[in-house]
Amino acid sequence: MEKFKVTFYPDNKVAEVDKGSTILSSAISAGIYLNSSCGGDGVCGRCKVIVKKGSVYAQPSGRISQEERKKGYVLACLATIESDLEVEIPAESRLGLDRISVYTKTEEIETVKPAESEDIFIHSPLATKLFLELPQPDQADRISDLERLYRGICKIKDIQIMQTGLANIRGLGELLRLSDWKVTVTLGNRNGTTEIVLVEPQDTSLKNYGIAFDIGTTTLSGQLVDLNNKKVLGTRITYNRQATFGADVISRIIYAQKEDGLGVLHHAVIDGMNMIIVDLISEHGINLSDVTCCVCAGNTTMIHLLLKVDPTFIRRDPYVPTANFVPVVRAAEAGLRINPRGLLFCVSGISSYVGGDVTAGVLSSGMYKTEKLTLFIDIGTNGEIVLGNKDWLICAAASAGPAFEGSGVACGMRAVNGAIQRVSINPKDLSLKCDTIGNVPPSGICGSGYIDLLAELLKTGIIDKNGKFNTNKANTRIRDGEQGKEFVVANKKDSDIVITEADIENIKRAKAAIFSAASVLVRHMGLEFSAIEQIFIAGGFGTYLDIEKSITIGLLPDLDRKKFSFIGNSSLAGSREILLSSDALQKSQDIAKKMTYFELSTDATYMDEYVAALFFPHTDSNRFASVKI
Amino acid sequence: MEKFKVTFYPDNKVAEVDKGSTILSSAISAGIYLNSSCGGDGVCGRCKVIVKKGSVYAQPSGRISQEERKKGYVLACLATIESDLEVEIPAESRLGLDRISVYTKTEEIETVKPAESEDIFIHSPLATKLFLELPQPDQADRISDLERLYRGICKIKDIQIMQTGLANIRGLGELLRLSDWKVTVTLGNRNGTTEIVLVEPQDTSLKNYGIAFDIGTTTLSGQLVDLNNKKVLGTRITYNRQATFGADVISRIIYAQKEDGLGVLHHAVIDGMNMIIVDLISEHGINLSDVTCCVCAGNTTMIHLLLKVDPTFIRRDPYVPTANFVPVVRAAEAGLRINPRGLLFCVSGISSYVGGDVTAGVLSSGMYKTEKLTLFIDIGTNGEIVLGNKDWLICAAASAGPAFEGSGVACGMRAVNGAIQRVSINPKDLSLKCDTIGNVPPSGICGSGYIDLLAELLKTGIIDKNGKFNTNKANTRIRDGEQGKEFVVANKKDSDIVITEADIENIKRAKAAIFSAASVLVRHMGLEFSAIEQIFIAGGFGTYLDIEKSITIGLLPDLDRKKFSFIGNSSLAGSREILLSSDALQKSQDIAKKMTYFELSTDATYMDEYVAALFFPHTDSNRFASVKI
Repeated sequence: MEKFKVTFYPDNKVAEVDKGSTILSSAISAGIYLNSSCGGDGVCGRCKVIVKKGSVYAQPSGRISQEERKKGYVLACLATIESDLEVEIPAESRLGLDRISVYTKTEEIETVKPAESEDIFIHSPLATKLFLELPQPDQADRISDLERLYRGICKIKDIQIMQTGLANIRGLGELLRLSDWKVTVTLGNRNGTTEIVLVEPQDTSLKNYGIAFDIGTTTLSGQLVDLNNKKVLGTRITYNRQATFGADVISRIIYAQKEDGLGVLHHAVIDGMNMIIVDLISEHGINLSDVTCCVCAGNTTMIHLLLKVDPTFIRRDPYVPTANFVPVVRAAEAGLRINPRGLLFCVSGISSYVGGDVTAGVLSSGMYKTEKLTLFIDIGTNGEIVLGNKDWLICAAASAGPAFEGSGVACGMRAVNGAIQRVSINPKDLSLKCDTIGNVPPSGICGSGYIDLLAELLKTGIIDKNGKFNTNKANTRIRDGEQGKEFVVANKKDSDIVITEADIENIKRAKAAIFSAASVLVRHMGLEFSAIEQIFIAGGFGTYLDIEKSITIGLLPDLDRKKFSFIGNSSLAGSREILLSSDALQKSQDIAKKMTYFELSTDATYMDEYVAALFFPHTDSNRFASVKI
Repeated sequence: MEKFKVTFYPDNKVAEVDKGSTILSSAISAGIYLNSSCGGDGVCGRCKVIVKKGSVYAQPSGRISQEERKKGYVLACLATIESDLEVEIPAESRLGLDRISVYTKTEEIETVKPAESEDIFIHSPLATKLFLELPQPDQADRISDLERLYRGICKIKDIQIMQTGLANIRGLGELLRLSDWKVTVTLGNRNGTTEIVLVEPQDTSLKNYGIAFDIGTTTLSGQLVDLNNKKVLGTRITYNRQATFGADVISRIIYAQKEDGLGVLHHAVIDGMNMIIVDLISEHGINLSDVTCCVCAGNTTMIHLLLKVDPTFIRRDPYVPTANFVPVVRAAEAGLRINPRGLLFCVSGISSYVGGDVTAGVLSSGMYKTEKLTLFIDIGTNGEIVLGNKDWLICAAASAGPAFEGSGVACGMRAVNGAIQRVSINPKDLSLKCDTIGNVPPSGICGSGYIDLLAELLKTGIIDKNGKFNTNKANTRIRDGEQGKEFVVANKKDSDIVITEADIENIKRAKAAIFSAASVLVRHMGLEFSAIEQIFIAGGFGTYLDIEKSITIGLLPDLDRKKFSFIGNSSLAGSREILLSSDALQKSQDIAKKMTYFELSTDATYMDEYVAALFFPHTDSNRFASVKI
């Protein structure tokens, strides 16, 4: 097979690829991830690149304008390579790079204050370090080194079943003697037994760190935690690089069935997680070897891909995953770069479409132990709804798309510095005021910003209840863009920050999917929304979500505002609680076992509910009586 | 560094080695193991080779005669390479080849009938196969594949803690569906938990095999067992290739401290074990993947080397091994070629010099559960003595050397076909009659043969009580050999089978070490030999050991012959019992914990006892009153 060299700018990275490969796949092999929410089908038009030199065969696409074509633009997924190439990747086509300044750095985020429930769990991290000063052997005390170690541990901890790997035994004799019988053991909670994960010379017990992860379809969040004092040292988020291969779990599962698709998706998520790990530990001057465990919460497909387990059967009737309860494994087995013997815990999931992220959310929300009838709504690419209390829990999932995570929308971004998170429009002069996270000049709009913006556009009549622009209003801000009509939210140096009609349509579908899922689930239990006593809203919105405005657009039901609490990324919070407590781990497993899954797609009323919700706030205005637009 | 090519004949194998390497190390790197009981120190003189072409620097050695020197003989360990070489290796210098006909084939041995105690353990192999016909998932039963598997197993077996590896989960979804939900799981007993070792399509439950090993300093024995019906399918023995690096555990430990010495010794033992495995399974048409576990009993140094654990501290005061209780590991981690996920169990040991082979021996002898005061003597390169009964057990070890295993003696061989195992000499005409194992022409003398031979030589006065030849007797058979006087036992085509005065000296030291160890241990407990109610004699003597003649030479104490039982290779028997029963495994651990170790080397009387025993049968003839020589 003829080989060609493709050089990517401005990265200056080179890939050697077969003739006929796509530019998209060549970019991936050079370690460059492009936007491609359709998974490379030529539909989304987000993987535009400029061919500077060389020859490609580019399938025609309506996503490339006449003018762009002249400049050399092609869709990377539709352009196959015919010669050596030089390709430039515009910032907006780049996944996870489009609106952040530093390439290698993932983003630090502010998070909602830990839920009150956090401290109820006994502090018993999944990996603990224990400093031992062992008595030296002598004529009267000649038990073997390993037995001596066990005896030393059991003097301090009551352990029923202790396990050790050969790797720890091999160097033990020398290690004990060189360290003068003073060693630190790391003990891991491993499927109901205790494993000696590590034996280190001298006292390293003060250095014991873990990482909690929320692995979202669109966004990865990681949090570095000092396991000794429960302190959160830092939080990072980055795009899940898998987004190059499709925006939602279904397109990922389809991609996984391609040749080596599973491996590619696996590496894509692992790369992102490893980048978060390196970023967090280098900032805090922590050694990789002192990170002894990590906990991952994610939807079922994400966990399968993380572990390189074939997700095929998740989307085949009767929709059964390979594992909901994943045993503890060595993090290195999955490719995670922490201590090579460190452990990986995956939070137990409920079904093919409700995963451990929801279990973690329910755990951190505390709803599993309250008397009150509670509704839990996790707003993400997959929207998950849980209804119940301490006695029962039922859940459902709806595919909302990544709009609320700032993906698949023209100027979307995550809830990080520079994101517009609050918007108000003066009804008199239609002047617009934005707040950005970090009070820095705006670089895009995050989920809570979109909710605010839509609510304000509705209230001021700039858009109608169908989501179309009323050009009679605010006509200085409404203009024709490449993708149709758009509204200028803020001016930026290179390109303005806008919301397009297509964006509004995307958000409408997302909010309709979530609202209708909640509505059907509540009714399935023979209840009305009015019976709900408290509502937890979770999602990656940073520290802010305006409940009033969420109701205004019809995302959340029209109930007494006092019933609502915004709890932030509850999956990450639950993951951290588990990291810090074996009790929390046990409780999470109880929750996952206890929760019933309700399949929306087979419910006759779901599609009707969804269609009725494709309106702001809803076609049935009686259901949003308090909303005045 | 200058490189030279060394070609070994008749193997026609080539090694590329650095200038200055010894011929011995070059041979090892070509995969050829030479005799070298001194571990390459130029002392034993057993690694003679003939330099046919090329130049070496050979340190002078009294082990090479004038005549040999003329023919090009050198000691491989003392000859360093100065040019490309051609080297011939005489059969007698070759380890494990010297007296067997087929190079690649290990030797099949007859074994003593399993001890009566064997059947007391419940049949519960360390790895069991379970065929499951799982219900297919449907709308009403949507638990994940892994949970379905667990549920299926738990319907049949009550399992507290179940573990699985990622490797089994990765392919599970497809495997279950392709096999129509009919699978066989292999469940392994792993340190107090149950591990799903394997999941295979369809019903393979009838194919489940294990291998029991006795890893001796000189001899490796392996036994293939059908785990379903407890049937022993075959037994093989071969030399432990580590013998190239020293005859006893001390010289091995010293060798292990050389650069890569540990790795070399590790591979040497693993190579031999893998050869036994391949030989056994190919004879019986069994797939490697159906061998799911193996159990190894060996002295503490052997187990360290098997696992590639540094044995250094075994011989440093206060003589503490790294592990006596080794956790279950994957056999592949140690380099053993059975199913790649198969398990390796090492029988728990007692101390640095009394290992799991003794635990296994005590288990299979049943002495741990008898009321009777019992003495257990394991005659091997390391001689081990255990005294006690169901209430208490005490043990000691003495370095006997490999003479009883047919090593370190001129015409020694293992107890396999062609070995002279019985000898009688007619006192009238001094004519000699030999029985060989398999009734084939003799090719050497095994341990029981040497015992018989010595007893007969003594009784007929051909040797005196000091072990020197009386040239007035049998003078047609006594002649001057290269190593001094020798007695011709049988005539062979190429070279006669003889016993030399040096051999007799070796055997005298070996029997003295064992007898005096037993004597000191009995007295240490405030007892006399006469108090012993039964005596078990273990060792690799095949099916035959003449107790009367063993007493005649002073190897065993002079007690009522009815008290003695010869139990063969009790380490291998115990290893097999453990392979077949988790109860036996538990019992072996109890035995190892319970047994007290007595250090002979620090006992003031041991050396006196030893010196007193360097006589046939003993300097104090009152202790062997019934022996008439």
